[in-house]
Amino acid sequence: MKAVLIIADGLGGRPTDLEGRTCLEAASTPNLDALAAQGVLGLVDPIGPGVRPGSDTAHLSLLGYNPRQVYTGRGVFECFGIGMDVLPGDICFRANLATAEETPDGLKIIDRRAGRIDAGQGELADALNAIKLAVSPKISFEFRPSTQHRGALLLRGHGIRLSCQITENDPHVVDGMVPDSKPNPDAHEDAAARVTAATVNEITKRSFELWKDHPVNLNRMQAGKPPANIVLLRGASDAPHLASIESTYNVKGAVIAGGALYRGVSLACGMSQLDVEGATGGLDTSLTAKAEATLQALRTFDYVFVHVKGTDNAGHDQDAVGKRDFIERIDRELIGPLSRRLDWSTTHIAVTGDHTTPIDFGDHTTEPVPVLFVGPNVMPDATTAFHERAAAAGGLSRFSGQVLPILLGYNNWSPKYGA
Amino acid sequence: MKAVLIIADGLGGRPTDLEGRTCLEAASTPNLDALAAQGVLGLVDPIGPGVRPGSDTAHLSLLGYNPRQVYTGRGVFECFGIGMDVLPGDICFRANLATAEETPDGLKIIDRRAGRIDAGQGELADALNAIKLAVSPKISFEFRPSTQHRGALLLRGHGIRLSCQITENDPHVVDGMVPDSKPNPDAHEDAAARVTAATVNEITKRSFELWKDHPVNLNRMQAGKPPANIVLLRGASDAPHLASIESTYNVKGAVIAGGALYRGVSLACGMSQLDVEGATGGLDTSLTAKAEATLQALRTFDYVFVHVKGTDNAGHDQDAVGKRDFIERIDRELIGPLSRRLDWSTTHIAVTGDHTTPIDFGDHTTEPVPVLFVGPNVMPDATTAFHERAAAAGGLSRFSGQVLPILLGYNNWSPKYGA
Repeated sequence: MKAVLIIADGLGGRPTDLEGRTCLEAASTPNLDALAAQGVLGLVDPIGPGVRPGSDTAHLSLLGYNPRQVYTGRGVFECFGIGMDVLPGDICFRANLATAEETPDGLKIIDRRAGRIDAGQGELADALNAIKLAVSPKISFEFRPSTQHRGALLLRGHGIRLSCQITENDPHVVDGMVPDSKPNPDAHEDAAARVTAATVNEITKRSFELWKDHPVNLNRMQAGKPPANIVLLRGASDAPHLASIESTYNVKGAVIAGGALYRGVSLACGMSQLDVEGATGGLDTSLTAKAEATLQALRTFDYVFVHVKGTDNAGHDQDAVGKRDFIERIDRELIGPLSRRLDWSTTHIAVTGDHTTPIDFGDHTTEPVPVLFVGPNVMPDATTAFHERAAAAGGLSRFSGQVLPILLGYNNWSPKYGA
Repeated sequence: MKAVLIIADGLGGRPTDLEGRTCLEAASTPNLDALAAQGVLGLVDPIGPGVRPGSDTAHLSLLGYNPRQVYTGRGVFECFGIGMDVLPGDICFRANLATAEETPDGLKIIDRRAGRIDAGQGELADALNAIKLAVSPKISFEFRPSTQHRGALLLRGHGIRLSCQITENDPHVVDGMVPDSKPNPDAHEDAAARVTAATVNEITKRSFELWKDHPVNLNRMQAGKPPANIVLLRGASDAPHLASIESTYNVKGAVIAGGALYRGVSLACGMSQLDVEGATGGLDTSLTAKAEATLQALRTFDYVFVHVKGTDNAGHDQDAVGKRDFIERIDRELIGPLSRRLDWSTTHIAVTGDHTTPIDFGDHTTEPVPVLFVGPNVMPDATTAFHERAAAAGGLSRFSGQVLPILLGYNNWSPKYGA
């Protein structure tokens, strides 16, 4: 048996100007509709009814974990997703390259994304990673850039305990002052939180000293671009305790995802990462390449998780036509080839989103999303289309998270709980 | 008011060779369908969506308990079900009479069920129960056989603490060596786990010494049958902390079940056990006798839980026709008499399964099962048949566990949570 899980990020929607339909309703999706006619639909609350999901927590929940028990923060998934080796006790951060200027009151943020810098990030990282920390010789760190202004930073203690119970130093607004990181008021291990916050503050301060006159930035300023002269750190988290999917189900899985966060969550769950040329994590991603890679991967792996990000991007951009059109591309370029070429006698497939991103709001909301299961052990319902309204009448009714466990359950792979 | 809960074990199914219908769809069930038309249907995940239930954990959940909080293992329900008196601190096991032979490397299992021995088990038990344990004079035990090779074993410490955090010694495969029981790697109480494991090892070793030349086995071997010369112990568990149903609802209930495990779960929840002649826990059980016993019991008890096992047996045997036919017997011999003779002005009834056991797989799977409630306080839906597909369109939608609390709720028996 084989299984394929497809998550279109932010797939769910609300009625739009497209004749009062959601983008998924407005899209022409003959391949998804054919699967709906063969399979069964339902509504899934990614985490639970009334819970507004983040992408990381939603993915954990859809993959079968309880985020209330295992989620420690975003940073660790960013580090995993960039390919960093996270050990127990490490503290991970989402990092932004930003533009700061000195003021009498401290450092002020002029641009949180350093003009979406697209070259020279590696040189800046090398310069920063070369410093020795004054706060303690027992602490090492690595900053690793990913795309544009984005990156991750990992702190490691050598014979010293660190803590993620600290505040971030990203002011989140332009013209905001860079605050010092401090131990959380309710930090359990005060000494560990103090030394970790001091480390964050030293790295941030020294990034500015090192980078403000760095050749990369002198060139940027000459070209009229904002310098990438400071690193901002948020999402402090340590390694979550996740029983791997393989240890639970005894099957091997692979992830195909352009975005580091989704790769990171999947790697933390024990999946193998497949690099697909042209998979960008954006609206310009190559969906045919993802379909081809999925079919190839199923020769080696028991299941494949395919993440598609463009739906969410269009939702955040409040672009109803763009979201509708991207859904049509998913149907034509990803679902179409899979429908034609999968061995349907031995394969189950699930299609869903990780949350709703309605056009009118442009951010995640709490509504449930449609979910579709097809395959030989699925009991079909009467639905013949794949969208929010059809899913509300689906044979699976409504449930929370657990889409991967349900999918693997159709393959008879689930461990029995009890006797 | 009165209430009746009927659980047909492994009732749920997937489409079968019976024209693509589930066994429940294929079965002619005029009495259940009439109840469906009067009542309301829904889908119930015995434990939760995507969770593959064991029978014990599923029953706990359907009876209103959270197995993640209260389940300690199978052994204790086996002991309860055989009628043993389980005290706090006792350690309970499911026990198998098996056939071992001596090898230079230790004891090897030739038959895990000792040829499904059907006589002499009591004499073997008496011999074993007479020994004094060398490991500690503060530990006593009782082995009690039930049907064929099955039984339960209870350890009791007298001024000494025991622990269920130990490994089992059933190799689960023929030609497997009997492993020593050891403390679990993450056992909290290491000393208690060590002495308990040592006790298991002594009992197992001495069962072989006592039984290998026991007259029961000499006779068996003369007759060409495998000797029952060793006891294998698994499912170590201590008494769960279950608030009795009576303490919560202030009503008295009785259980009618052929299988020891189901009786055991119900006794642990505080129900009284009713012995019904001809209730075997198999496909040959007398369902008319169970119906008659239910009607009698309702004169004394507030509610009755009737467990029927044959559906699951046929599912495990991958016998679609057998499962369909047994469902027709349930409809005709159990539901029919109850429908005709219950006082419907004062009685609520629920019918469901404890998990899905599809024919193609022959074991429990994760899919939800149909559930039906009928009675004067039930708001009917539009369904007119009782099966998986009808239940997906039922008025109760989909929920997890809690069938008994919902049933007792219709009787207005539930305590208020909060003010």
